[in-house]
Amino acid sequence: MSRFLTAEASILSPYTPGEQPQDQQYVKLNTNESPFPPSPRVVKAISKGEIQRLNLYPDPDCTKLVTALANYYDLKSENIVLGNGSDEILAFAFRAFCGKGKPVAYSDITYGFYKVWAKLYDLESIVVPLRDGFELNVDDYMDLDATIVIANPNAPTGRQIPIADIQRLLEKDPDRVVIVDEAYIDFGGESCLPLLYRYDNLLIVQTMSKSRSLAGGRVGYGLGSPALISDITRIKYSFNPYNLNRLSIAAGVAAVEDDTYFKACTGSVMAVRSWTVSALEELGFTVVPSVANFIFATHDTKPAKELYQTLKSEGVLVRWFDAPKIDNHCRITIGSMEQMEILVETLERILEGE
Amino acid sequence: MSRFLTAEASILSPYTPGEQPQDQQYVKLNTNESPFPPSPRVVKAISKGEIQRLNLYPDPDCTKLVTALANYYDLKSENIVLGNGSDEILAFAFRAFCGKGKPVAYSDITYGFYKVWAKLYDLESIVVPLRDGFELNVDDYMDLDATIVIANPNAPTGRQIPIADIQRLLEKDPDRVVIVDEAYIDFGGESCLPLLYRYDNLLIVQTMSKSRSLAGGRVGYGLGSPALISDITRIKYSFNPYNLNRLSIAAGVAAVEDDTYFKACTGSVMAVRSWTVSALEELGFTVVPSVANFIFATHDTKPAKELYQTLKSEGVLVRWFDAPKIDNHCRITIGSMEQMEILVETLERILEGE
Repeated sequence: MSRFLTAEASILSPYTPGEQPQDQQYVKLNTNESPFPPSPRVVKAISKGEIQRLNLYPDPDCTKLVTALANYYDLKSENIVLGNGSDEILAFAFRAFCGKGKPVAYSDITYGFYKVWAKLYDLESIVVPLRDGFELNVDDYMDLDATIVIANPNAPTGRQIPIADIQRLLEKDPDRVVIVDEAYIDFGGESCLPLLYRYDNLLIVQTMSKSRSLAGGRVGYGLGSPALISDITRIKYSFNPYNLNRLSIAAGVAAVEDDTYFKACTGSVMAVRSWTVSALEELGFTVVPSVANFIFATHDTKPAKELYQTLKSEGVLVRWFDAPKIDNHCRITIGSMEQMEILVETLERILEGE
Repeated sequence: MSRFLTAEASILSPYTPGEQPQDQQYVKLNTNESPFPPSPRVVKAISKGEIQRLNLYPDPDCTKLVTALANYYDLKSENIVLGNGSDEILAFAFRAFCGKGKPVAYSDITYGFYKVWAKLYDLESIVVPLRDGFELNVDDYMDLDATIVIANPNAPTGRQIPIADIQRLLEKDPDRVVIVDEAYIDFGGESCLPLLYRYDNLLIVQTMSKSRSLAGGRVGYGLGSPALISDITRIKYSFNPYNLNRLSIAAGVAAVEDDTYFKACTGSVMAVRSWTVSALEELGFTVVPSVANFIFATHDTKPAKELYQTLKSEGVLVRWFDAPKIDNHCRITIGSMEQMEILVETLERILEGE
């Protein structure tokens, strides 16, 4: 920290991303990446010609990608805004819809970035504890005069709530924005998308990082009523209008258009998830019911921190959070069948060595 | 604007980027892009293998690109931070070094985004008028208790100030950050880089958008003392840590490493600039002395707005700003020789038609 940093900035608590070892020597199950490369159409879309046009600015409105998403979700262009990853859309939404007299509410166990953005914008946070079994009960949010952010399915637990619950929240106070972070929705979860035309206070945030194998391409988007989307666009144009580069736009279009590949990848993750849950349960784990591309597991006898450390030393990276209530769980990304077999074999070896 | 937008966000005045027609039917001299494709090494660097790894997150620290830049500028890693274009670095710097009791100072005629970020962060702005002939005199900034932002060379004028002037500003108050926006430095300007090790209150911001033909790739960076850089990194990790995608990192490395191509491109722009200035002067233009990849020109008789409009109808896009003091100038990007010949021929036709 320099002596130049303002007091406002010195109180920030930056986010800690999962480890990203650049040597790739690990079986990497710690940051919820897809085990599959992007669609072959993405490889084709990033053509030599496209690369040679990098001297030109991208379209700040990302028209082609907006159109592709509008076709895919049966929405209008005005319902869609693109971000440099869904993190950027969430950051813009916090800036647009929270402020003085308008706190942000989120649960005590959820995506760790919500509290970071709350500090970034000096917002009052209402932190709502999950109930037993990491259950989110919307009754706990019903009367809050706040912008509500819900990760559905939740991270790092993988649990989802029914969209009827979101609907109750939306109806209870039509002047309150509900942000549903659907980063992990494509692995069997139920999206709020059908509610979009009925509630203008709903903002859905999705990403191509997980289900469309584009974590390295940074493509996220917000879906909502035209008024909400124009608000986010206002923030985008006050911060960094050219937020998506040309190649990410091209990659995004190709990824959305290859629905067969998308279904194959997400289908595989769901099948491998079932297998992994069974295998872990046989090894004495309790696994939170997950509709995400990760599972949240605790072992009957072996502490999670020790498991994380031993797995790491054996070449398998999972994520462990040093935080109350969840520090005896590991979050394990669902990778390929081969990766999960290595995980299970390694766990067997570790647990036998007890 | 929705009824959900906070009062703080409703007062924002978003930036208006230059027109980006996506049909590319224009001779496009309005957004200071390079007329050259990126280095052939960039095309090679964005390989099929690299694209197939887009399922993995990028390195948030952009280690490879930081290393390449450190080698190029003879700096240490701790002196460098990467952004999604230099706009993002500037936005982070405003957030880090300006706030309550610490206004931001910039000139009345300069990059239009400074005032937008000032509003985004609710900062007090000290707007310092340029002197006659668009001259920036650092004496006007000497006694300001503010974070100072200077575009050098300035946009949209193309004028530069000597680094001895920047040095005077840095020395006058060592507790004041001076941000030098060197987006256009590579076309004959004098960079502040030699001052970097001597003044820990200097932040230099550069971009690969212009001189390295990567406007579509979004690669900008801040250079400064380790403490300043760690402050900006703090903001980055509080906003969007994965701000550079994998392909932009790869493109940036390749672009920095191809110095021969860089020198050929920037050399061409400088030569074509000289030719264009002479040609325009013969047509009755007065051109502000420029060390950038654009020129700022006014005609003796023909109003700039009319010139801009007529040029556009003839298929040549230049930039005209509807703002006091500069609304009788056009900003014209230096393109290829062929493009500038078309510009000059078109102007001849327009002016003959008087």
